[in-house]
Amino acid sequence: MTIEKKVRAYTNIALIKYWGKRDEAAILPTSSSLSLTLDAFYTETSVAFKEDITQDTFYLNGVLQNEAATQKVSRFLKLFREPTGIQTPALIKSTNFVPTAAGLASSASGMAALAGAANLASGLNLPDQELSTYARRGSGSATRSIYGGFVEWQMGTSSEDSYAVPIDDANWDIGMLVVVVNSRQKEVSSRDGMKNTVETSPFYAGWLESTAKDLIEIKKAIHSHDFQKVGEITESNGMKMHGTMLGANPPLSYWEPYSVVAMQLVRQLRKEGIPCYFTMDAGPNVKVLCRLSDSEKIKARFAEVFRTEQLIVSRPGKGLQIMSN
Amino acid sequence: MTIEKKVRAYTNIALIKYWGKRDEAAILPTSSSLSLTLDAFYTETSVAFKEDITQDTFYLNGVLQNEAATQKVSRFLKLFREPTGIQTPALIKSTNFVPTAAGLASSASGMAALAGAANLASGLNLPDQELSTYARRGSGSATRSIYGGFVEWQMGTSSEDSYAVPIDDANWDIGMLVVVVNSRQKEVSSRDGMKNTVETSPFYAGWLESTAKDLIEIKKAIHSHDFQKVGEITESNGMKMHGTMLGANPPLSYWEPYSVVAMQLVRQLRKEGIPCYFTMDAGPNVKVLCRLSDSEKIKARFAEVFRTEQLIVSRPGKGLQIMSN
Repeated sequence: MTIEKKVRAYTNIALIKYWGKRDEAAILPTSSSLSLTLDAFYTETSVAFKEDITQDTFYLNGVLQNEAATQKVSRFLKLFREPTGIQTPALIKSTNFVPTAAGLASSASGMAALAGAANLASGLNLPDQELSTYARRGSGSATRSIYGGFVEWQMGTSSEDSYAVPIDDANWDIGMLVVVVNSRQKEVSSRDGMKNTVETSPFYAGWLESTAKDLIEIKKAIHSHDFQKVGEITESNGMKMHGTMLGANPPLSYWEPYSVVAMQLVRQLRKEGIPCYFTMDAGPNVKVLCRLSDSEKIKARFAEVFRTEQLIVSRPGKGLQIMSN
Repeated sequence: MTIEKKVRAYTNIALIKYWGKRDEAAILPTSSSLSLTLDAFYTETSVAFKEDITQDTFYLNGVLQNEAATQKVSRFLKLFREPTGIQTPALIKSTNFVPTAAGLASSASGMAALAGAANLASGLNLPDQELSTYARRGSGSATRSIYGGFVEWQMGTSSEDSYAVPIDDANWDIGMLVVVVNSRQKEVSSRDGMKNTVETSPFYAGWLESTAKDLIEIKKAIHSHDFQKVGEITESNGMKMHGTMLGANPPLSYWEPYSVVAMQLVRQLRKEGIPCYFTMDAGPNVKVLCRLSDSEKIKARFAEVFRTEQLIVSRPGKGLQIMSN
């Protein structure tokens, strides 16, 4: 009997955004990115290769998944089957620990946890950096979820060196308030949105040049624990990504009315002397980078406009973890 | 006794935006732009050079203006005094006919009407095209308000040839619904906003290249009365301007929650088969380009979310008009 060890991976929020692939199949990005891993959102996954089942079987949150979802997992497991020669069917059990209705992308933590669990079950035992290139093949943002704290995903020159690098453990006074504007399925997936942006936005060259500079600057600011600088670059870089999307044809915007309400409140809090900065991804939710020590105060202000269940405070998260059963 | 003839000028909404000066003093733009003159919003102004007053005296909407506002008008009148040698003080009476609380920029119609009235009173009697270069010195967008219908402001090579050119009288089934999101004073003036965008946005080169192409395409679409194409280019060009602003440092956004509500409703109406397209300027209001024949139907849908006084339908407007007393 195999002991099915669970692997936990935390999600991450990009402060320097990933918005575009230079290679669709290998998921190689057009630029390097940098994120903060979050403790409040994670996925736990186990993989067991079992002779007593006839095909790969995938449970998500306790529910047996359909063929399409299972095939996606099987395709990913190929990466671990090929070098090890394992043909045995796999039983995959995965649970997303994301507050109800958060509607946050679970692909980062999901694919990172799957990579970690497959790495363990297959006996391939890749070191983290190489494992991050495997996670990348599942979902770009999963690359960064292998590590905790501030993580850089270096764009690299090929599939082998496009990996994550830990930058700082974020073990200082920093955290994030996630404002869940809504959790509906988005109309344009980030995959399609970024593809169209790369192909049609006249701002794309400017975006690439500018985000490369932002990455250098934010790493300096992280190393010197300069919260204000980290926040300003985060907010500016995120808005540039959204500006680049507005340049796409047709224009692409993920903003909803309450996204603007949240961003305006962040600007208002800054005017009142509370340092905090927003960022947004391919959806309407707003993430507020703040001092962890200010986070409850900021959450209380947001609670005047949003329902409590829309507001989730998180401290920085760790890298992949093997859970004891 | 001089008869004080009033000159009326209508405001205009840019479909191909003006966002940046290459010469701040002469108000020479970094790109050509194109607008639709609107019948519903206008300014009427009279200028009389009078021996019986001791200094320039400016009434706006019946209220005597302070020194700062009057000096702005006096500076502008210099353009007409220098070539004619007129030293006599001027009495300027101006009235903005803009629905209450519309909060729409009155500088386009205001400066165009002032230019028209000064042209008349000074006896300079410049032809319209040259007069548009004078209006330009008062406010960039005023350049286009000299003419009616669709008007191009050609960026030109110097102050003399940066003027307006009428493109099409817009005497076909086209109009605009102006959605007044709010009429508060904006925090960042368009003057400062465009300056900062030109200086800091990494998207600016892409904007200039792209807006030049849009101008060529929209003129073709206007000439063939292709409403859908005119609308698509209008919406895309406006969003690119706002994307360019998001690229500025710090990021600049004039959007308010209800701006997004209005834009989402336009997208919804299109899904239902009603052709309409939005544009936005340096403020939160949303302008909906539509078939004039659809405008009341569209207004009724907006009235489910906005108050009636926030919704103003307009047909295309004419060029400068000398009013009979």
